[in-house]
Amino acid sequence: MFKFTTPVSTLIEELKKIPGIGRKSAQRICFYLLKAGKQDAIELANAIMEAQEKTFFCSICNNITVTDPCEICTDPERAQGQICVVEEPFNIYSIERTGLYNGTYHVLHGNLSPIKGIGPDELKISGLIDRIAGGNVDEVIVASSPTTEGNATAHYLSERIRQYNVKITRLALGIPIGADLDYVDSVTIAKAIEGRIEL
Amino acid sequence: MFKFTTPVSTLIEELKKIPGIGRKSAQRICFYLLKAGKQDAIELANAIMEAQEKTFFCSICNNITVTDPCEICTDPERAQGQICVVEEPFNIYSIERTGLYNGTYHVLHGNLSPIKGIGPDELKISGLIDRIAGGNVDEVIVASSPTTEGNATAHYLSERIRQYNVKITRLALGIPIGADLDYVDSVTIAKAIEGRIEL
Repeated sequence: MFKFTTPVSTLIEELKKIPGIGRKSAQRICFYLLKAGKQDAIELANAIMEAQEKTFFCSICNNITVTDPCEICTDPERAQGQICVVEEPFNIYSIERTGLYNGTYHVLHGNLSPIKGIGPDELKISGLIDRIAGGNVDEVIVASSPTTEGNATAHYLSERIRQYNVKITRLALGIPIGADLDYVDSVTIAKAIEGRIEL
Repeated sequence: MFKFTTPVSTLIEELKKIPGIGRKSAQRICFYLLKAGKQDAIELANAIMEAQEKTFFCSICNNITVTDPCEICTDPERAQGQICVVEEPFNIYSIERTGLYNGTYHVLHGNLSPIKGIGPDELKISGLIDRIAGGNVDEVIVASSPTTEGNATAHYLSERIRQYNVKITRLALGIPIGADLDYVDSVTIAKAIEGRIEL
C-alpha cells in the first residue's frame, strides 16, 4: 500500500485529529501548506504556538482569554448581573454579533451527555452556581442548543438554579428568519405555535 | 463589534487562509486547538514546521518528496516508461490506492485556466516534455479531472506530445460504480454510451 513520506503522513495524521477534518480534507490542507510556500505554513505554526502559549480560561466565566479575569468579566459597561450560559467559547461570538446582549457569559465547555459519560462534574457548572450564590446575579440566560443534550443541560441548570432568587430564561424556539414554512420541521413549528407572540 | 483577543484572532485569520476553511470552521478548529490541551496543538505546529522544512518537489516528477529523485522515480520495480500525469500531489494517492498502476507520475501543479491566468508556463509541462523527449517513455496517461480546465489541459498535452512516438491515453469517462442511473447527469451518460464496452 502506498504511503506518503514521513513528515507528510505525520502532518496528515495531526490534521486528522481535528474534529470535522477527515482524510481528504487533511490531505488537501497538508498539500496546501506544503505548496503555499514556507511563509504561510510558518505563520500558521507560529500562530498555533502563540495562541496556545498565551491563552487560558478565565477564572470567572471559562472563556478563552489572555488576561484574568477576561475583558468581558471586567468590563464596567457590561451588566455584570446578567449571565448568558453557552456551551463553547465560540458561541459567545454568535451572541456578540447580534449586538443585543450586554451582560456577561459563562462557558460550560460542553453539554450533559450520559452516552458520552459527561455528567455535571465534567462541565463548568459549580463555578456558575458559585457566581449565582454570590448574590449579584439577576438573570441567567441559558443559550444551550435546542438538541437533546442541550435541552438536558438547560433542564439540569434550571433545577440547580431554581433555589436562588434569579430569573432563568432560555433562547426562544421558533421559525428562523427567511425560512420557508414548507421546509421547517414540525417540531420547530409546534414550538413556534406554543411560543406565538401577539401582534 | 466583538473581537477575539489577539492571539486567538491571529490564529483564526491564519486558518482562514487555507482553501475550503471559512470563518466558522476556522473558529471551531482554533477553539479545538486551544481546548485540546497543549500537546495536540504543539504536535500540529511541529508537524507543520517539520513537513515544511524537510519536503520539496522531486526534480523529475514534481511530487512532494524528502529525497531527490523521489521514491517512485527511483523504484526499479516500477515501469519507468509509463507516466501518469496528475494535477496535484494528492491525486497520486487516489491512483495508488487502486493498486492497479505501477508506473511513474508527473505532477503538473494545476490545470490550464485562461480565466485564472494559468498558461502552460505556469504548469510543470516543460519537464514532462523533456522526459518524453528523453526517449524512454512508452505511454503517457493523462489523469486530469474531466472538468473544463482538466479537459483543456489534456487536450493541450496531447497536442504537445503527439510529435513523439508515445501512446497517449486518458482515464475512461462513465458511470461511477454504485451510482443510480437516475441520478447520473446526462453528459456522463452520453460519455458512457460513447465509450461502451462489449460484453
